[in-house]
Amino acid sequence: MLSDPFKSHFLFLILSFSLCVSQTLALNSVPEPDASALTYLWPLPSEFTSGNRTLSVDPDLSLAVAGIGGNSAIVRAAFDRYRAIIFKHTSGISIFSRFTGRSSVYDITKLKIIVNSDNEELQLGVDESYTLFVSKNDGKSIIGEATIEANTVYGALRALETFSQLCSFDYGTKSVQVYKAPWCIRDKPRFAFRGLLLDTSRHYFPIYVIKQIIESMSYAKLNVFHWHIIDEESFPLEVPAYPKLWKGSYTKWERYTVEDAYEIVNFAKVRGINVMAEIDIPGHAESWGTGYPDLWPSTSCREPLDVTKNFTFDVISGILTDMRKIFPFELFHLGGDEVNTDCWSSTPHVKQWLQDRNMTAKDAYKYFVLKAQEIAISKNWTPVNWEETFNTFAENLNPRTVVHNWLGAGVCPKAVAKGFKCIFSNQGFWYLDHLDVPWNEVYTAEPLEGINDTSKQELVLGGEVCMWGETADTSDVQQTIWPRAAAAAERMWSRRDAISTGNIALTALPRLQYFRCLLNRRGVQAAPVTNKYARRPPTGAGSCYEQ
Amino acid sequence: MLSDPFKSHFLFLILSFSLCVSQTLALNSVPEPDASALTYLWPLPSEFTSGNRTLSVDPDLSLAVAGIGGNSAIVRAAFDRYRAIIFKHTSGISIFSRFTGRSSVYDITKLKIIVNSDNEELQLGVDESYTLFVSKNDGKSIIGEATIEANTVYGALRALETFSQLCSFDYGTKSVQVYKAPWCIRDKPRFAFRGLLLDTSRHYFPIYVIKQIIESMSYAKLNVFHWHIIDEESFPLEVPAYPKLWKGSYTKWERYTVEDAYEIVNFAKVRGINVMAEIDIPGHAESWGTGYPDLWPSTSCREPLDVTKNFTFDVISGILTDMRKIFPFELFHLGGDEVNTDCWSSTPHVKQWLQDRNMTAKDAYKYFVLKAQEIAISKNWTPVNWEETFNTFAENLNPRTVVHNWLGAGVCPKAVAKGFKCIFSNQGFWYLDHLDVPWNEVYTAEPLEGINDTSKQELVLGGEVCMWGETADTSDVQQTIWPRAAAAAERMWSRRDAISTGNIALTALPRLQYFRCLLNRRGVQAAPVTNKYARRPPTGAGSCYEQ
Repeated sequence: MLSDPFKSHFLFLILSFSLCVSQTLALNSVPEPDASALTYLWPLPSEFTSGNRTLSVDPDLSLAVAGIGGNSAIVRAAFDRYRAIIFKHTSGISIFSRFTGRSSVYDITKLKIIVNSDNEELQLGVDESYTLFVSKNDGKSIIGEATIEANTVYGALRALETFSQLCSFDYGTKSVQVYKAPWCIRDKPRFAFRGLLLDTSRHYFPIYVIKQIIESMSYAKLNVFHWHIIDEESFPLEVPAYPKLWKGSYTKWERYTVEDAYEIVNFAKVRGINVMAEIDIPGHAESWGTGYPDLWPSTSCREPLDVTKNFTFDVISGILTDMRKIFPFELFHLGGDEVNTDCWSSTPHVKQWLQDRNMTAKDAYKYFVLKAQEIAISKNWTPVNWEETFNTFAENLNPRTVVHNWLGAGVCPKAVAKGFKCIFSNQGFWYLDHLDVPWNEVYTAEPLEGINDTSKQELVLGGEVCMWGETADTSDVQQTIWPRAAAAAERMWSRRDAISTGNIALTALPRLQYFRCLLNRRGVQAAPVTNKYARRPPTGAGSCYEQ
Repeated sequence: MLSDPFKSHFLFLILSFSLCVSQTLALNSVPEPDASALTYLWPLPSEFTSGNRTLSVDPDLSLAVAGIGGNSAIVRAAFDRYRAIIFKHTSGISIFSRFTGRSSVYDITKLKIIVNSDNEELQLGVDESYTLFVSKNDGKSIIGEATIEANTVYGALRALETFSQLCSFDYGTKSVQVYKAPWCIRDKPRFAFRGLLLDTSRHYFPIYVIKQIIESMSYAKLNVFHWHIIDEESFPLEVPAYPKLWKGSYTKWERYTVEDAYEIVNFAKVRGINVMAEIDIPGHAESWGTGYPDLWPSTSCREPLDVTKNFTFDVISGILTDMRKIFPFELFHLGGDEVNTDCWSSTPHVKQWLQDRNMTAKDAYKYFVLKAQEIAISKNWTPVNWEETFNTFAENLNPRTVVHNWLGAGVCPKAVAKGFKCIFSNQGFWYLDHLDVPWNEVYTAEPLEGINDTSKQELVLGGEVCMWGETADTSDVQQTIWPRAAAAAERMWSRRDAISTGNIALTALPRLQYFRCLLNRRGVQAAPVTNKYARRPPTGAGSCYEQ
């Protein structure tokens, strides 16, 4: 598939970059909202220039690949997905035109994708940068049509998303157009970890729905699906080593098989999204005991898990061994939040165990968390823990621990000051079940707030929006996630200086409304942007672009 | 594709019917709710028997067709769709099993579909009846495995839906099972017209979303998509004869091309669903004047449409000519509701026109509706009008008029008494935007209420649930439609005596909850069934099957 022009694609790249630079007069500027221009991108690319030409895109757009990583199944599948998205509105037209004998000459008939590495390992910090040029090939330049260049296939996926957002269906010509061409975009994410948590314990989500959510994440360039699989309410996952665990599911139909989990991981991977699994221990684990009541300190004390028994840690080790086969991501979440140890102290055998070791219940909480960390590390995982572990015994935490903030402001600054990595999920802004947080507060929450030292800033891996499931099920989860998750996504992807100045009602809101309507067109149930409360229906008739 | 056993399929059918009858000891009974049995069907078939065996279904289930209509593209496409639905959860398993060397012998490896007519015209009253047998072929009987017989492809589609509902994924064996086999089902709808209205004027719905809604309708065996395309707020449809009309769309991106409309009609047809288009005149038509201001009596009187001008009726005729090419269904909805003629009387040229003709404004309303009916009839359409037309001038309405009830009870009895056909949509029960109507009130609303004469009952074509769009957009439309539309769907499909007796909290609710979870599994955002108000999120953690 190496076509002639690509034989010297290194020369091409040098030329194209210099052309891009020569066009960067408008670089760094945020476009003025102008509904007629239709060139809104979300999240905002790192650097871009645009022109004032309108180009038509051939519905039979073809793919040409180059570079040692170009001939990748991931790239080809993504091209097919995006072609279906871009031409969603024109499938009928294309056939119709053939009947009516209409014919067209299109400005863009080919998309060239160059991938410079064939390493498809998807790990934290994988290179997601890309360059995207869209211009008309006038025969004079070797740069023409649409060209993507990336170091990895994952950068190419991000570029495809951007390209798809440049394409819009024009009802006048009944064809797909790119406005404001030529486009010259150089883009990369600000943070390596841009997550969304989904809680499948409070409500079960069918795997089809989980896939829809993962697919929609890719539209906003989010890249970590934090799967909060299990909690006190239900244990839906199959664990071969302990086959009674999923007796803790709500019903026998609300379960995930091992194969389901593999399928979700693979579905996410080919969209450049890692899956970070979580088992939230020792609290939030009552459902474990449905299958194995020995995990409960007693029938009246069902969580935290019984700290005194080897069996408890055998089960944890068994789960982690089984999960290690499924989840290749280097981060594994061990929970550790909201551990109420009261009933440990009132359960005779646990009380005795504590006395024998001269431990307080708080000591036992630390003991539990550290022992679980050791198990995870022994299986070559980097442990992530909710911030209570750091708040309670920072000095004992394994130094590889990633601290996951949620309770409030100021935790990441403290964690990175002590050398820990940190993930920002301040519940006041990035807990999606907090319905009274409007889009602009989600948007302006800043993971680096209070961290001024560049070397410390680098310890903030990124952030995560959290979709806790108490009132979110299949019927309403997408509209609770979107559009506010997109506000956080731009915060995590785009340059801080580009999105933190100016009046966001002008620089961000119209683009976010456009992105929300784009999600709707793609079948994602994103709610109106300017609702006072999240996920509420529109208050009256009106255009998607104004609600 | 005619396999040997089908060469004598008429003999086969006679035998199979008699077998079915010989098994009808349990016929007419409503199954007791029993979560472990997993054999809930929605809507309830007309007649059925079941047994106590569990049969496994081959993920490589094959299709065999017979009958002069069996070799239909509609049947083959539907089989592929349903195979994807039935084995949604097992695609990973199947591949996994190959790797692990597991192998299975399945009870059901083939689905036989016999269609007795090759007439694929889809009109009101098309034969949707079918017979479905599911039993293990033990070598003794010529009836074995799964067999569908129908007079038309549309009956076969209904049977495929029923078959898919009999199949459920078993997490123990990780395979698809049919419980309570053998099944012997003979089924047909009670009403010919089982509709859902979607309003694409108050909010624009992308065609992808409209398709999702139509697809979900087929799961509940609804068969008329009433497309309320245009209203006063926006005019999204392209009309080639009057190309400025869709200037009345909200934005240039919230439009439907002629090709989109064709695509929707075809998408619906292959699911056995007719599309009934509506232009709501002379009220509810302000948006028409954005492109053609002459349609407004004046800039301060923008609706009802100007009754005095030939141009008004030329435009209506032009729209209907263009629409006739797109919509083959024999019914066309001309609206006619909520016509406030006040501003006609205060617009000088209209007032003069009325005076010249010695007409009241009410006379002019009648004149307008009857003239529009004539135009529709001249284009070989049967006109449907909202009940105000009947309430105001029943004696003048064209006798072919179908009266569409909405304001309240008692209208269909009056309409059929005068010989008109009628559609039941009593807003107190079947307007889905009325969020305070719980599922049981939707379920018990009866289209034949107050009509005891069998010959008059036959004039009630059926009913329709109405999804008005003021507070429904892409984000919330499916959860507003479902599950309550399903309650009406069973009312319209199933035998009145089978669903109108007993305690519906036992006979219907568990099946409806199961159907709601089935919709969720298929990716449809059906809301919890027992919410006090429709489309509200679940009030707390819990199983789909109990909310």
